[in-house]
Amino acid sequence: MKFLYKDSALLEEKNIKETVNLLNGYINHLNDVAQRNNYEDSESSINLSFDEELLKKVVGLKEKKVTKNLKYILVIGIGGSNLGTKAIYDSVFGYYDVIEKERYPKLIFLDTQDAVVLSKIKKLINSLSSKDEILVNVISKSGGTTETAVNLEVVYELLQNKFSGADDRIVITTDRGSKMQKSAETKNIEVLNIPQKVGGRYSVFSAVGLFPLVASGFNVVELRRGAQNMRNVCLRKISEDNPAAVSAAIIYLHYKHGKNINDNFIFLPQLESLGKWYRQLLGESIGKDGKGITPTVSIGSTDLHSVGQLYLGGPKDKITTFIYGENLTNQISVPEKTVFNLVDVIPGKPIQKVMDAIVGGVKIAYRKQNAPFMEIVFNNASEEALGEFMQFKMIETMFLGVFMDVNAFDQPQVELYKTETKKILSVD
Amino acid sequence: MKFLYKDSALLEEKNIKETVNLLNGYINHLNDVAQRNNYEDSESSINLSFDEELLKKVVGLKEKKVTKNLKYILVIGIGGSNLGTKAIYDSVFGYYDVIEKERYPKLIFLDTQDAVVLSKIKKLINSLSSKDEILVNVISKSGGTTETAVNLEVVYELLQNKFSGADDRIVITTDRGSKMQKSAETKNIEVLNIPQKVGGRYSVFSAVGLFPLVASGFNVVELRRGAQNMRNVCLRKISEDNPAAVSAAIIYLHYKHGKNINDNFIFLPQLESLGKWYRQLLGESIGKDGKGITPTVSIGSTDLHSVGQLYLGGPKDKITTFIYGENLTNQISVPEKTVFNLVDVIPGKPIQKVMDAIVGGVKIAYRKQNAPFMEIVFNNASEEALGEFMQFKMIETMFLGVFMDVNAFDQPQVELYKTETKKILSVD
Repeated sequence: MKFLYKDSALLEEKNIKETVNLLNGYINHLNDVAQRNNYEDSESSINLSFDEELLKKVVGLKEKKVTKNLKYILVIGIGGSNLGTKAIYDSVFGYYDVIEKERYPKLIFLDTQDAVVLSKIKKLINSLSSKDEILVNVISKSGGTTETAVNLEVVYELLQNKFSGADDRIVITTDRGSKMQKSAETKNIEVLNIPQKVGGRYSVFSAVGLFPLVASGFNVVELRRGAQNMRNVCLRKISEDNPAAVSAAIIYLHYKHGKNINDNFIFLPQLESLGKWYRQLLGESIGKDGKGITPTVSIGSTDLHSVGQLYLGGPKDKITTFIYGENLTNQISVPEKTVFNLVDVIPGKPIQKVMDAIVGGVKIAYRKQNAPFMEIVFNNASEEALGEFMQFKMIETMFLGVFMDVNAFDQPQVELYKTETKKILSVD
Repeated sequence: MKFLYKDSALLEEKNIKETVNLLNGYINHLNDVAQRNNYEDSESSINLSFDEELLKKVVGLKEKKVTKNLKYILVIGIGGSNLGTKAIYDSVFGYYDVIEKERYPKLIFLDTQDAVVLSKIKKLINSLSSKDEILVNVISKSGGTTETAVNLEVVYELLQNKFSGADDRIVITTDRGSKMQKSAETKNIEVLNIPQKVGGRYSVFSAVGLFPLVASGFNVVELRRGAQNMRNVCLRKISEDNPAAVSAAIIYLHYKHGKNINDNFIFLPQLESLGKWYRQLLGESIGKDGKGITPTVSIGSTDLHSVGQLYLGGPKDKITTFIYGENLTNQISVPEKTVFNLVDVIPGKPIQKVMDAIVGGVKIAYRKQNAPFMEIVFNNASEEALGEFMQFKMIETMFLGVFMDVNAFDQPQVELYKTETKKILSVD
């Protein structure tokens, strides 16, 4: 992963440096957290990718639960309980699931309330010939998330009806001692725990993400290696060498000057769900006390034909990060001899070259329009690169919390609608 | 479709009314356009749903091309050429395609440049046993869109290699007289035309949307009926009776007071692509001359667990439209006797009731936080409702163009990156 910003962030280097220096104390603290290597701080998620015991536990459980017959893993969870897993799954498999009908196992995510989806899940479960073909991972940190509780009860009944007993096909991931854990234990359902101090949006490298990813065939060792390397980079105190600190400073300085939108413009379409994972991370961590930056996800080149006009011709209210790949596969090219002859510069061009040229053209256009941007360049979209990116963004977000003077680890206003929802359900 | 705003838009009724009155002249013009019932004005897209000849042509071509063997329709197009089709397809079929493996025909959308996707499409085409199983609809208004030209050439070669001759499995949709049309005619490939004055983002009810939708089994008569009814409603001059005028006025007034983000918060998850269709419509129509409103799409209840904290606790920079259903199916319920007992208010509740309660809870929370919103209530997510919604939003956007004094039908800055991209491709 490369991080670039010079000449395009449209800020003075001195200004960036001074801002980064404000983080010195906090970076000391992060280094202390890393050295303690336990789960006693709000920032302890940075230790997850180093946790060998966790890896052993998750892999052991996979060996117990996954056979060659496995076709579907239902992931029941919402928000921090599934966005990270979905980001990684979609980037390698999920984005292609409709055109690769026969690739298994497939992850299916049940998050919100959807009677139509559940009726189709019922059909799917009833079409299975053995319970080895399905595995259900239910994830709720608190153990009391309404949507997750609903989906669990419905799916549990479907499994019972079909297989008369399928407790061994369920794995529950929750905080130690939650109601959900206790309930699971009375049935001998396997339980994985999340360290209490690790919040949902920082939990992708805990059992929350690792178990469904390992179970569906991911190389989580590479994922963890990427996160490990990046954590060490983002704990450095020399500003130029710490991309998370520089990126956070650039986002913050532009926010101070009125840019309230942070656009991730991703030219790797399979990473759209990674953008959605980041939306939660930024939105929920920083959006409080009347402050906040709205994260948006744009997909190149698709969205150049959609909101591109707005981004180039509209108000200057955004700081953009372009995310794209380099040295990617060139396995498919436009034929040397084209048949329709619609665009004269494409014959014989590898598909990726066309995409590279679009990225290049967009960057020039942004410069001409004085629209500030940063760049994150993936050498590929491997598990390692994803691990790097996610660790980078989680630490960047903690830094933003410092700059904006908000608690990057709570979400107090979410209770507002939850309370009202429960009131409605209790009388209705 | 119901439209609600009173007591929640946080504007004085008088103010809204005065703003709506500014549209009187323009509404006269739209009525003239409707009466002419041709395609000679920028606003002529409002006549598409009344075009009987168009419907006949599209249905006739479907009867020629679609047999029971059809499994895949590849839709090659980007931006205005596929977003409307995808919005409607996903809302009824596409959102469920992974869990309904054996439902056919499936639409597969090829828009951007993606070597990995194309290599998987190659495998898919090679797995087919007859060319009747596939149909390719290539859509480009200008006939010269780079991504579309690339995807067409690659897919054409794959078809030729597999079936040695498959021109009869291709349908091209483009402007009359474009290079693409001429090229198609030399091969006797069927061509459908788009009226010249109808821009991509207003073209969903032209052959652009109708053909792939008809071919994949949609009830476009219902879709058109919804659009017809809504067009007539949105051409009324009495403010209270014209939801598009009121909605545009509310968005505009909040924009003038500094709200630069327009969030569509959709509590029907299958409508996410409909939100993306609207992103282009608003972004590209209004984002110019340094003006513009950034459209965002949020999905309920999923995004309550993601950006909900930001929306409730962050800065007041958004005007929101909640989009949700009522009287939807109650076919699935939480069991009366729950097993895990995690949330005490859910046993026996129909799934849809839980969603209704979440919507209710969120509305109360927004009111408490003084966050302005409007509501669009779908009686169901049928083709008719989608037709209503899309026609509503297209006319609302034209009204916004009037308020903001921009041309809602051009996209001048898009050329900026296209020119640079072609320069790069021509030397590389």
